[in-house]
Amino acid sequence: MDTPAGPSVVVIGGGVIGLSVAWRAAQRGLAVTVADPDPGTGASYAAAGMITPVSEAAYAERELYQLGVASQQQFAAFTAELTGATGLPTGYRQAGTLQVAWDSDDLAVLGEFRALQESFGVTVQPLTSRECRAAEPLLGPVRGGLLSPDDASVDPRLLTSALLRAATGAGVRLIRSAAVEVTSTAGRADGAVLADGTGLRADWVVLAAGWRSGALAGLPPEAIPPVRPVKGQILRLRPGPGGPPGGPAGLLNRTVRGIVQGSSVYLVPRDSGELVVGATQEEMGSDTRVTAGGVWGLLRDARAIVPGITELELAEAVAGLRPGTPDNAPVLGPSGLPGLILATGHFRAGVLLAPVTAELISGYLATGELDERAAPFGPGRFALARQEAGR
Amino acid sequence: MDTPAGPSVVVIGGGVIGLSVAWRAAQRGLAVTVADPDPGTGASYAAAGMITPVSEAAYAERELYQLGVASQQQFAAFTAELTGATGLPTGYRQAGTLQVAWDSDDLAVLGEFRALQESFGVTVQPLTSRECRAAEPLLGPVRGGLLSPDDASVDPRLLTSALLRAATGAGVRLIRSAAVEVTSTAGRADGAVLADGTGLRADWVVLAAGWRSGALAGLPPEAIPPVRPVKGQILRLRPGPGGPPGGPAGLLNRTVRGIVQGSSVYLVPRDSGELVVGATQEEMGSDTRVTAGGVWGLLRDARAIVPGITELELAEAVAGLRPGTPDNAPVLGPSGLPGLILATGHFRAGVLLAPVTAELISGYLATGELDERAAPFGPGRFALARQEAGR
Repeated sequence: MDTPAGPSVVVIGGGVIGLSVAWRAAQRGLAVTVADPDPGTGASYAAAGMITPVSEAAYAERELYQLGVASQQQFAAFTAELTGATGLPTGYRQAGTLQVAWDSDDLAVLGEFRALQESFGVTVQPLTSRECRAAEPLLGPVRGGLLSPDDASVDPRLLTSALLRAATGAGVRLIRSAAVEVTSTAGRADGAVLADGTGLRADWVVLAAGWRSGALAGLPPEAIPPVRPVKGQILRLRPGPGGPPGGPAGLLNRTVRGIVQGSSVYLVPRDSGELVVGATQEEMGSDTRVTAGGVWGLLRDARAIVPGITELELAEAVAGLRPGTPDNAPVLGPSGLPGLILATGHFRAGVLLAPVTAELISGYLATGELDERAAPFGPGRFALARQEAGR
Repeated sequence: MDTPAGPSVVVIGGGVIGLSVAWRAAQRGLAVTVADPDPGTGASYAAAGMITPVSEAAYAERELYQLGVASQQQFAAFTAELTGATGLPTGYRQAGTLQVAWDSDDLAVLGEFRALQESFGVTVQPLTSRECRAAEPLLGPVRGGLLSPDDASVDPRLLTSALLRAATGAGVRLIRSAAVEVTSTAGRADGAVLADGTGLRADWVVLAAGWRSGALAGLPPEAIPPVRPVKGQILRLRPGPGGPPGGPAGLLNRTVRGIVQGSSVYLVPRDSGELVVGATQEEMGSDTRVTAGGVWGLLRDARAIVPGITELELAEAVAGLRPGTPDNAPVLGPSGLPGLILATGHFRAGVLLAPVTAELISGYLATGELDERAAPFGPGRFALARQEAGR
């Protein structure tokens, strides 16, 4: 294979963000190496794959919502291009999201979501209890809902598999080893050291290692992204072989997000009939044990929203660690260490934000200019917060 | 190895019952062959291992209770002999059982259990709510309980491993293949055919194949045991690495059986700190899927009884198929086909009843006389029921 003529980049981390950035950067002529001992097995592996900026807007600032919409609008083309390049499916489905409320207090919370979403200029469609069940006949007795028809979903495991093949097909070199250190020369990042001591030299280093992004050696304090692990437990439920022949494989037509006595749950259907139920949010350090309490809480809330889940096989329970940041928004762009670019801290939205993150970061690597949409997500915002806290 | 001089026997099924029978029969001089494609992976694999004839008495007739007591009284010596012969542990613990009631209706049910148990001549010790928590400090707000101090428990997976080694050490030949047919000559069973077509000849055939015992070819109608699969889902919960150093590894001192709004749950502690939570009872044919509803119900009830389980790792969820019979009691002894001996249908009590079953069946094989304690469990009782139903 010919060596690309462009500058070289080492991407540390082969999750959905690192692989998306690597793929797009290779397409723009950079010589890309991805270092990951086991690509796609971190937060991406546990993710449900909701492409739901409207629903996520309830938890986010306007800028993050707008970034999510930008990414959502790219998603159909992004996945179509991936499948075209690789022949691999991604599980992309644009079927919308229905948010539902379990009791009257939950309905009040849903009303606040609606007001917030409308303040962002989004029109969501309020549904009565009866309308909710017309849309999703197997819902339990919910009080009402909000329909977001543009939302979509993807299967993150299929997505990372397709990204991996697309990236290597575009010339990305994958090294199945962990990068443990970022190296610098004369105050500029110039590569990474792998777990076995091998050094990799590059013009740019992209740090996309999820919750571990802050833990590499060689990072000066001002370049360390403030990420922490936020544990999420998630379930995969599957229909038995005895489903209705010719009928829909699954219980739901679209993603359903429920608020059940103040507790949040979501159910994401796949074309196969699989239903992904998530997710806990726990500050437990790097613990990835599946717990009795986590599984119980998810099943309790999912069962309240869709009673028929009790008949499904509990095929898998798994926990992942999302990279959380102080403001729940990602960290994108040049860091305090010249040559080191951050693409981490995506928290619950790594899958949603992968296309736009790849566009912004690969654009910067290729042109040296950062798209203004990335401006609110620069690492500098935490330095400012630290300064203000110190006054 | 010298061939034993005694009569030969083929034991069909290498679960806790088949292996116990084989071991004891070999000790009595019979030439024993066990046929099982994967010993110890049926109902024995999913079993919790409660040695609790008193608690089980609530569901049983007096004769079955007495059989359970006979087996319980053998258990300490049975496991000690196994460990002595093999060096392998069995997880035997004699720590008692505490039955507890969640609400006042449950307490009334517990009162009926007590009356039934006392009608069998058993003295159980009623405890107040406060006394329950003194015995088990991590119990939730239960209304009261019954203490059965003689009850014990064993780890069925360790038990079958030890039985397998003890049996082969005593000369039992293990064939890792399924028997699919019982063969007869002149109206007497004389062997079995394996899945690959190989024939095994023997003076006796012992059918100990659990819920599949009725499904072998070659059984005349009067020799078919009326067993059916009764699905049981069970959970294994484990403490994290951060348990109190030097303290007790687990949440409970003894087996706790709860009645929670009419629903039964049990929690069996192991010395390792593992807690086994069981079990559903479902008539689902041979389905062994772990379901969302099964796991949810077990966690709901277990959490009501011991709230602290929510912090434990959900290490395993598995389903097994118990061999149920029309009267929930086992089928023991000679069948309508001379030469064919039944040792099946133990339902929820296979582990409990293994020592006494092995004693009774091996005694019959060695002497030709059936201990009178087996009389209530003969296969003939179902033929009589069929006749009466036909009148």
